[in-house]
Amino acid sequence: MNDQVITHLLDKQTPILDWMKDFLRIPSVSADPGFDDSMHEARNFLVQRFTEIGLDNVQLLDGGGQPAVYGESLRAPGKPTIIIYGHYDVQPADPLEEWLSPPFEPTIRDGCLFARGSSDVKGSTAIAIETVAAFLAVEGDCPINVKFFIEGEEETGSPSLRAIVDKYRELLQADGVLSADGGRASREIPTINTGARGNNALEFSIRAAKGDMHSGRYGGAVRNALHDMAAIVTSLHSSDGTVTVKDFDIDATAPTQRQIEDTAAFPFDQRAFLDHVGAVAHGDPAYTTREQLTLRPSIEVNGMWGGYTGNGVKTIVPAQAHAKITIRTVSGQDPIRAIESVRKHLIAHCPKGVQISFSYVGTGSPASTLSPLSPLVLSAERVLQAEMGLRPIHVRLGATVPITSIFQEMLDIGTLMFGFNLPDEPVHAPNEFFRLESVEKGLRAWTKILRELSTHKTSEFALK
Amino acid sequence: MNDQVITHLLDKQTPILDWMKDFLRIPSVSADPGFDDSMHEARNFLVQRFTEIGLDNVQLLDGGGQPAVYGESLRAPGKPTIIIYGHYDVQPADPLEEWLSPPFEPTIRDGCLFARGSSDVKGSTAIAIETVAAFLAVEGDCPINVKFFIEGEEETGSPSLRAIVDKYRELLQADGVLSADGGRASREIPTINTGARGNNALEFSIRAAKGDMHSGRYGGAVRNALHDMAAIVTSLHSSDGTVTVKDFDIDATAPTQRQIEDTAAFPFDQRAFLDHVGAVAHGDPAYTTREQLTLRPSIEVNGMWGGYTGNGVKTIVPAQAHAKITIRTVSGQDPIRAIESVRKHLIAHCPKGVQISFSYVGTGSPASTLSPLSPLVLSAERVLQAEMGLRPIHVRLGATVPITSIFQEMLDIGTLMFGFNLPDEPVHAPNEFFRLESVEKGLRAWTKILRELSTHKTSEFALK
Repeated sequence: MNDQVITHLLDKQTPILDWMKDFLRIPSVSADPGFDDSMHEARNFLVQRFTEIGLDNVQLLDGGGQPAVYGESLRAPGKPTIIIYGHYDVQPADPLEEWLSPPFEPTIRDGCLFARGSSDVKGSTAIAIETVAAFLAVEGDCPINVKFFIEGEEETGSPSLRAIVDKYRELLQADGVLSADGGRASREIPTINTGARGNNALEFSIRAAKGDMHSGRYGGAVRNALHDMAAIVTSLHSSDGTVTVKDFDIDATAPTQRQIEDTAAFPFDQRAFLDHVGAVAHGDPAYTTREQLTLRPSIEVNGMWGGYTGNGVKTIVPAQAHAKITIRTVSGQDPIRAIESVRKHLIAHCPKGVQISFSYVGTGSPASTLSPLSPLVLSAERVLQAEMGLRPIHVRLGATVPITSIFQEMLDIGTLMFGFNLPDEPVHAPNEFFRLESVEKGLRAWTKILRELSTHKTSEFALK
Repeated sequence: MNDQVITHLLDKQTPILDWMKDFLRIPSVSADPGFDDSMHEARNFLVQRFTEIGLDNVQLLDGGGQPAVYGESLRAPGKPTIIIYGHYDVQPADPLEEWLSPPFEPTIRDGCLFARGSSDVKGSTAIAIETVAAFLAVEGDCPINVKFFIEGEEETGSPSLRAIVDKYRELLQADGVLSADGGRASREIPTINTGARGNNALEFSIRAAKGDMHSGRYGGAVRNALHDMAAIVTSLHSSDGTVTVKDFDIDATAPTQRQIEDTAAFPFDQRAFLDHVGAVAHGDPAYTTREQLTLRPSIEVNGMWGGYTGNGVKTIVPAQAHAKITIRTVSGQDPIRAIESVRKHLIAHCPKGVQISFSYVGTGSPASTLSPLSPLVLSAERVLQAEMGLRPIHVRLGATVPITSIFQEMLDIGTLMFGFNLPDEPVHAPNEFFRLESVEKGLRAWTKILRELSTHKTSEFALK
């Protein structure tokens, strides 16, 4: 049975690609105020398209930064309501001289569309918009209710996203989020991302004396804050890299059999993964590298400093030392409890007579988790199985996806990442590209997942 | 039996004090080029006095920086030749508003002479010059041959001292150095400084990856350069603070019975010493704090840094870390061997796959040591015993005295510090003062030590 919407989309691939290119010509760099006019132009471009394709209630959602662009189609009573997330801002294009074609002049070479933002994430955002446009054109409505939320600050860390969600909380009520950003881990193997680690941060300082001391007058007879800091940092892990903080992972959900199997099934070239950045494998030997990265929490010191760090020699016994720590948490971990276990460990390992103080202790984002039984996941599984002929592998991200955490925390809804970019497309770097084949794949898959989602009751979406 | 020279000096105390005040009125701040005219004036002032009192061969010794002022009296054939060291430069006087009387207007209050440079070290330098002046005035010659060497860069780390000594090596041949700088550790207890620790430095870096990695993508599964640096630094000492570097002190001379006794005899208020800087005692428990500071070598990390050290959070697994280390050595230790033992330790404790590199490995100054049987020490013992009625205690400095090291290394002669300033006189700080009583004590003691030195053969001075 032919899907008329897919037929329509495949017929319209040329105008869709043209529209995508026009979108890519707008240098909407959110990090640089010099591009503010282009940010404005990109919003207008989306507002115009949203209006053209027949979305309702089209508006800018302003939280004090770059506004998000909103538009909705709520013509499927009783069906689930899904926020479709994407972003219209892009990374800066520097260094310009390394681009083979200009970053804001979309150019096709070798089956790929080269332009800043093509992979991250105007390409997948356009696929989502055009899929809904096709439903509205062919069928007059969508199988589900959709609310587009196209952000303008993703590349600068979403500074006003919480303010926007807070201000438009009523407008943004939904059963789940389908994100055009992120999702595919491999070109050949279908994957479904079922969550991400949480993130939490603290910074602390120790003081071992009133001020730096002369290393001749005091060296060898008093505590040195750098020696003490080194011992404190060392105490966080055993020599094999296992976290040694008491009760740190006491509430972490143990990896399920399915997670262990999926992690093993995912094709992962550990040697290539490490060699890419010249890194050395190190971590809890009870887990594989992929398990360490996605199913296990971690503690990393991100910065450490103290004493004299300029040129040459300064003969001091330093009085102070500082460190920044981030903590990645997994499902089940209460982020406040996890960070408190680290804080207690640091205090317990600070030597007698040495003062410890915390300049901040973050409350952080918890790990985000989609149940394998979520309609978002089940729908994606059916679509990808049908399209690719392979059982999708569930994967988790080691990193934290702030929008996922924010939607989960503030709106109590889960996010399925369903973008069609691939990990080898150089996002945030020169010569970013998006595979042209992904456009057709994406249009087909997005059509199908909107249909699949409509087969679920809204009650099935509730997060546990 | 009255000493006619001492009688003469005590009669002339008023003009001596007036001359000292004139010397102190010259703001000879070597650190600030704005005071170059005053540096020039101070040299002229010394050249004039040297000429006036009858020194020969008066000249400036120029090594490319602030020249030293030289003058000699070599009229004691067969007797030892002694360099008399002092310096005419002073520290900057800032913060000016904290001075109760102007820093360059010498003012007497409560038996003390307040002025920048009074204690460090124009006071003691003047005592040495006036003592020789008295010998020349009363006896027509000195009991020994003297070579004045009054430096102009002591407060800026003697940058051209090596160049001067190298250029005027023949002129500066001598059997020993009597320094007007440093020496007294207590007002009541006579002390003789028999040496100082050496100093040596290195800086190293480690690299655990090509670049910083995302803590979400890599955290928990790869080596973190800061964790590795912390472990390397921690490995340098045991938890009680004892150095654990293999063979680090293998050639260190064990403290002698006399050193142990003298260290115990020296009045040392450990509580006050630590409280002054708010420090916490820590170090090899086999030694007392005074022994740790003066008879034992030490390893101190002076600076350590890596990763993100700015404001806020940066979620990275840092690729690089850096540290600066200084090493204080004691008698017997070959500084090159000592630093090599540390370098080897650092390499051995750097994890497999992590690169270590050294941005510098100093050759450093060895510890300086005066034998307790040196004529410099024996002469000082007899003088101080006679003047103070107590057996002098031998002490060593924990810090390194560069001029002592340079004279020992380049001219193969030992230095006895015989200055009359005291540790509680706020040198390098506002309201610096010199006790007036120290002027008489100094004049008496300097007269006597020149006579005592003349009783020794030149052959007795050779360093072992």
